[in-house]
Amino acid sequence: MKAVVYKGPRDISVSKVPDAKIERPTDVLVKITSTNICGSDLHMYEGRTDVESGKILGHENLGVVIETGNAVDRIKVGDHVCMPFNISCGFCENCERGLTGFCLTTNPGNAGAAYGYAGMGPYSGGQAEYLRVPYADFNCLVLPPDAEEKENDYVMLSDIFPTGYHATELAGVRMGDSVVIYGAGPVGLMAAYSATIKGAGMVMIVDTHKDRLALAEKIGAIPIDNSDGSCVDQILDLTGGQGADRGCECVGYQCCDHKGHEVPNLTMNNLVRTVRATGGIGIVGVFMPEDPGAKDKLAKHGQIAFDFGQFFTKGQHMGTGQANVKAYNRKLCSLIAAGKASPSFIISHELPLAEAPEAYENFDARNEGWTKVVLKPEA
Amino acid sequence: MKAVVYKGPRDISVSKVPDAKIERPTDVLVKITSTNICGSDLHMYEGRTDVESGKILGHENLGVVIETGNAVDRIKVGDHVCMPFNISCGFCENCERGLTGFCLTTNPGNAGAAYGYAGMGPYSGGQAEYLRVPYADFNCLVLPPDAEEKENDYVMLSDIFPTGYHATELAGVRMGDSVVIYGAGPVGLMAAYSATIKGAGMVMIVDTHKDRLALAEKIGAIPIDNSDGSCVDQILDLTGGQGADRGCECVGYQCCDHKGHEVPNLTMNNLVRTVRATGGIGIVGVFMPEDPGAKDKLAKHGQIAFDFGQFFTKGQHMGTGQANVKAYNRKLCSLIAAGKASPSFIISHELPLAEAPEAYENFDARNEGWTKVVLKPEA
Amino acid sequence: MKAVVYKGPRDISVSKVPDAKIERPTDVLVKITSTNICGSDLHMYEGRTDVESGKILGHENLGVVIETGNAVDRIKVGDHVCMPFNISCGFCENCERGLTGFCLTTNPGNAGAAYGYAGMGPYSGGQAEYLRVPYADFNCLVLPPDAEEKENDYVMLSDIFPTGYHATELAGVRMGDSVVIYGAGPVGLMAAYSATIKGAGMVMIVDTHKDRLALAEKIGAIPIDNSDGSCVDQILDLTGGQGADRGCECVGYQCCDHKGHEVPNLTMNNLVRTVRATGGIGIVGVFMPEDPGAKDKLAKHGQIAFDFGQFFTKGQHMGTGQANVKAYNRKLCSLIAAGKASPSFIISHELPLAEAPEAYENFDARNEGWTKVVLKPEA
Amino acid sequence: MKAVVYKGPRDISVSKVPDAKIERPTDVLVKITSTNICGSDLHMYEGRTDVESGKILGHENLGVVIETGNAVDRIKVGDHVCMPFNISCGFCENCERGLTGFCLTTNPGNAGAAYGYAGMGPYSGGQAEYLRVPYADFNCLVLPPDAEEKENDYVMLSDIFPTGYHATELAGVRMGDSVVIYGAGPVGLMAAYSATIKGAGMVMIVDTHKDRLALAEKIGAIPIDNSDGSCVDQILDLTGGQGADRGCECVGYQCCDHKGHEVPNLTMNNLVRTVRATGGIGIVGVFMPEDPGAKDKLAKHGQIAFDFGQFFTKGQHMGTGQANVKAYNRKLCSLIAAGKASPSFIISHELPLAEAPEAYENFDARNEGWTKVVLKPEA
Repeated sequence: MKAVVYKGPRDISVSKVPDAKIERPTDVLVKITSTNICGSDLHMYEGRTDVESGKILGHENLGVVIETGNAVDRIKVGDHVCMPFNISCGFCENCERGLTGFCLTTNPGNAGAAYGYAGMGPYSGGQAEYLRVPYADFNCLVLPPDAEEKENDYVMLSDIFPTGYHATELAGVRMGDSVVIYGAGPVGLMAAYSATIKGAGMVMIVDTHKDRLALAEKIGAIPIDNSDGSCVDQILDLTGGQGADRGCECVGYQCCDHKGHEVPNLTMNNLVRTVRATGGIGIVGVFMPEDPGAKDKLAKHGQIAFDFGQFFTKGQHMGTGQANVKAYNRKLCSLIAAGKASPSFIISHELPLAEAPEAYENFDARNEGWTKVVLKPEA
Repeated sequence: MKAVVYKGPRDISVSKVPDAKIERPTDVLVKITSTNICGSDLHMYEGRTDVESGKILGHENLGVVIETGNAVDRIKVGDHVCMPFNISCGFCENCERGLTGFCLTTNPGNAGAAYGYAGMGPYSGGQAEYLRVPYADFNCLVLPPDAEEKENDYVMLSDIFPTGYHATELAGVRMGDSVVIYGAGPVGLMAAYSATIKGAGMVMIVDTHKDRLALAEKIGAIPIDNSDGSCVDQILDLTGGQGADRGCECVGYQCCDHKGHEVPNLTMNNLVRTVRATGGIGIVGVFMPEDPGAKDKLAKHGQIAFDFGQFFTKGQHMGTGQANVKAYNRKLCSLIAAGKASPSFIISHELPLAEAPEAYENFDARNEGWTKVVLKPEA
Repeated sequence: MKAVVYKGPRDISVSKVPDAKIERPTDVLVKITSTNICGSDLHMYEGRTDVESGKILGHENLGVVIETGNAVDRIKVGDHVCMPFNISCGFCENCERGLTGFCLTTNPGNAGAAYGYAGMGPYSGGQAEYLRVPYADFNCLVLPPDAEEKENDYVMLSDIFPTGYHATELAGVRMGDSVVIYGAGPVGLMAAYSATIKGAGMVMIVDTHKDRLALAEKIGAIPIDNSDGSCVDQILDLTGGQGADRGCECVGYQCCDHKGHEVPNLTMNNLVRTVRATGGIGIVGVFMPEDPGAKDKLAKHGQIAFDFGQFFTKGQHMGTGQANVKAYNRKLCSLIAAGKASPSFIISHELPLAEAPEAYENFDARNEGWTKVVLKPEA
Repeated sequence: MKAVVYKGPRDISVSKVPDAKIERPTDVLVKITSTNICGSDLHMYEGRTDVESGKILGHENLGVVIETGNAVDRIKVGDHVCMPFNISCGFCENCERGLTGFCLTTNPGNAGAAYGYAGMGPYSGGQAEYLRVPYADFNCLVLPPDAEEKENDYVMLSDIFPTGYHATELAGVRMGDSVVIYGAGPVGLMAAYSATIKGAGMVMIVDTHKDRLALAEKIGAIPIDNSDGSCVDQILDLTGGQGADRGCECVGYQCCDHKGHEVPNLTMNNLVRTVRATGGIGIVGVFMPEDPGAKDKLAKHGQIAFDFGQFFTKGQHMGTGQANVKAYNRKLCSLIAAGKASPSFIISHELPLAEAPEAYENFDARNEGWTKVVLKPEA
């Protein structure tokens, strides 16, 4: 089959690889019809991870079931399914509490597995024609009858819509809260969208890219243009000097100041400053325990110079970590089915698998207009 | 001053009464500019309570502070304020946990006090020119600068908007849930509106009045016309036979079947039938511990023949009680200020105080188009 | 193999039946070493259910794994395991939210399955030499190294310890709360024990059996002897007239007054009276949707004459339903392992399988000293 | 009256000062009978804050009401009362949500006020004969009839018992959880005690002082002696390499390594290492936004080099801040009244006010046996 394969830093190709196949009786095999490029794929693309050459990328996957293992009871051939990027067993201590992003079974010695991702287990990704899905009864979300018609909405259930929603849950966003979101990339936009769905009051979103801020404004968020580095002042002005009730980190460890220099503690310390006393902060932007490629000395060891005294004095709280997609995908799916959510507004490009290299290059460069790419292996 | 005074069953008048005044150092005096007639005022109007003759009615009040007691620190003369219908002290065991609808101080021997209401303490209501507000620092919600412009929205913060919201909290409505609401009166409409604000999926609302169902449809709810008594079947059909995730009771003890006969257990047993196993039910429609005027033998003693076996087998849960308005009014206020909620859509009539008798009569008769009346004492 | 088989009302026998065996690749086979008789087995024993003749009883099971299906990944031959009475799939909408007592897969058309129980699916019970365990990776709790030494403690994790704990969770018991528990049978005692573990303040427990009240007193609860029907007054006296913060129903639909007559609404209405305004009630005693054998007319149809007006006015809430055992068994297990809980204090009799008929007879009669029986098939 | 007055670093005296008196109609005046020295008093004592010379210290206060302002409704002369160290209004946005440690009224421009404390408003402390208590109806906890008999228990409700409990709430400790607590000072011991009350499984507590570890062992905690710096290994060993479910920081910004050198990020990074993936961390040890006296360059600006990458990868969460004492003191009080908690086990010395200087000196030096001092102004 054809698949997007990682060769080395900024080098991916669409290659012929052995077909994905059923390996365990609890697996199903899915023919992929939509698979997105994710912002976190760029960490691998840029060579800022230890992912091995030859890895098939892609963890935002949707398709049709074409074969089922003999212990699979729920999923049937022909089902349209969307897979959480997390691969989880359903029966370990973490899964049974719904913490499927931290499965103790599927990536032994670690907490959490994923398709086609550095350090997340030996699983191939879905930027390919076919995908093996382990523990399929647990992992597959079966889509409603309008699966094909709204496929570009439903594919967002694999990662960024639940991840954006997770940011708002970690922050504790509730009805009427003011919220500030750092980062208007796909996940930040989904966090803003999620906050709005939950009935937040004022939703502010910080970025320096005007195309992304414009998209944020379209969904009712207040764009905070940080091109001049004034975001803290702007947010304090809008919140009567108190800061927002809640804040979301949707940038991650490669965050930059307004001049484009990496300043690893910038977003987190700005969050502490711009979230009110007793407020909550949710962090879904990826931070790495080791980052040998960083220039900053602390960052090499996964540390940041964090304003902990301020954080404590304000009595804030924060939650972190990859989203437990299954905690949200079923309900977000029902919003899409009911016509109350349409996350596909974020998609800028629909491309065949063969154009993945150009897509990675443009998305990585944050070229104007390249907000989100969905690959269509059948095209 | 002039005030709406209860004289006896279906007999109210607008009379001259002694002016409201500061009685305790923690009081303020408010000049009322908007005061609603509430569905629960009709229980008194119809003679189905033991309210005493001479009582000034009115618990949905908004106005301007014109005098403050000498122990009042926060509230200032000139503040535009909206008062929760609950009168609460702020320091008892219940108030300190936020259960301000069950204050142990303001109505000794009971849990909970209110303005102008049967059994809720010796407090005059606000369907009058002036209102005394006890524990004013705790009870007054100070409104934003656009208080006058959006007065018809803000006055809904006194009761029905928070009460509708409370129904959804008691039921446990969360993002993506399907919800069924019994009763499309003002509170039921506010419950539907609240569920939508919180990101519910499908919101169904049951009634027999076509004007109210039409209003529900305008805010995105699915009207369930129960004129033929088929509501249970309609709801099960819409939910794949499972029932809704959550249900709200917004009718109360005088609920009727589709032919207009009082059947006190009808709504509750329909809720058990039409909410899914493990689902939640929130009850804000008023039920009385004694109802001597009821025809039903059990109802006279405040009992209903409840499908408890079904309720248990389905593992449902329910919460009840008058809303703790302060738990929600500040955040709902911020939604109005941000232009994200406008509960005044429910108002059918703005009338001067003098027309209160006609308003009560029409509202009590559920005459077509009489959804919600706001009285304007200054008019 | 030998097994306890239901023949008809008050008629069970220990018979030879076909051996339990692996039927699906996700099953394991367990050799039973401890299996309790439960109070809810008595509903079947007394002929108050529609359980079919020939059913193998027993849903409180513990043993050693002797064979595993080929899709089982976690459970190994030789593991000492305790099974929740619930049989659940782990992947349906309810299981994925932790509501394993309401599995939508294992008992199609209903919510929830169990071993050897009326209306809970086609599964044989474990009062037998061997037991087939479906979805074993999900359902088996693997016990710590001291499994054999503390077997009589660990077997309580199958049902009554989590069920008692569930009652306190449904009621919302938290640190410092006063709690009243109706019923000092095995589940009520476990509820009292659980409340104490969670740091409740005063724990009161109501019954008429002096041996059970004595056992309650041993674990620090205040016994409320209701032999004279004065329990409501006693509880109000102990709580300054307010009632307890929380209440638990551990009796069920066959509740009796102090003279021994079935009065189906008695416990529930006493709970409403003896729980404070805003308090919570948790119900784990079984109530049936239909009870043709009842004398009470409402009870035949699964209804009770419930003090709903009082319940509403007090702003109480209640939760019901069979325990989701997996929500608690892992943590309760760790308390036993740490020497911080020892629920075996409840056991009055350890008997071989052959003596099951006498055990049922004595337990059903509530004969003095027959608090809890554990059967030992290997003995 | 006599009072403990701060003169300068390591210089306090017991001096004659003007009598405390009623200043506002909502005040009461309390004759102090017990007032503790707190570990956080030592930050001031050591000159590591900007507290002004002349300040009366003391925020852990209990006594008898001797006068009430004319707007006080609940509190009566003669009431035995214990005051939260927080001074809060009861009606601001934070107080109304129960966040009384972050009152927006009582210390304008900041969130939170306290008696006798640096940066916490102009309030005198209670290490004195009399204390003025603002917003007395809200702030005073009226003690049960056994107030005098258990005075040494009840005085712990002013701060360290609720603060220790708060640590466990911030960390999310629930029944059966394993917990690691850093710091076996008074607050750490109260956190261990609180975790035990809530039904935690294994409770580990880290310190280098053998007398404190011995006290911890007495209440059932596992002492982790860090004299050799091996605490991380010890904890991982005890938890099967996973780390504890929850962790509590009860040390603060002056934390030291096992050789006694201040290493400001040591405790926090050890917590990240020794709490399991998805676990929670509660921080009640004080961290300062600025610490000019620190040697560490980051610490001067209130920063620590925090292992953020590890924290994110493990999906942990943390909560911080001074305890909202009123959130817990009423329920903890009922545990003391019921004989289920006795936090006075921590007291090592009962001394007259005159001996405060020696007490500060010994407590500051962590001299053996000086665990907790309660001053008795009447002695």
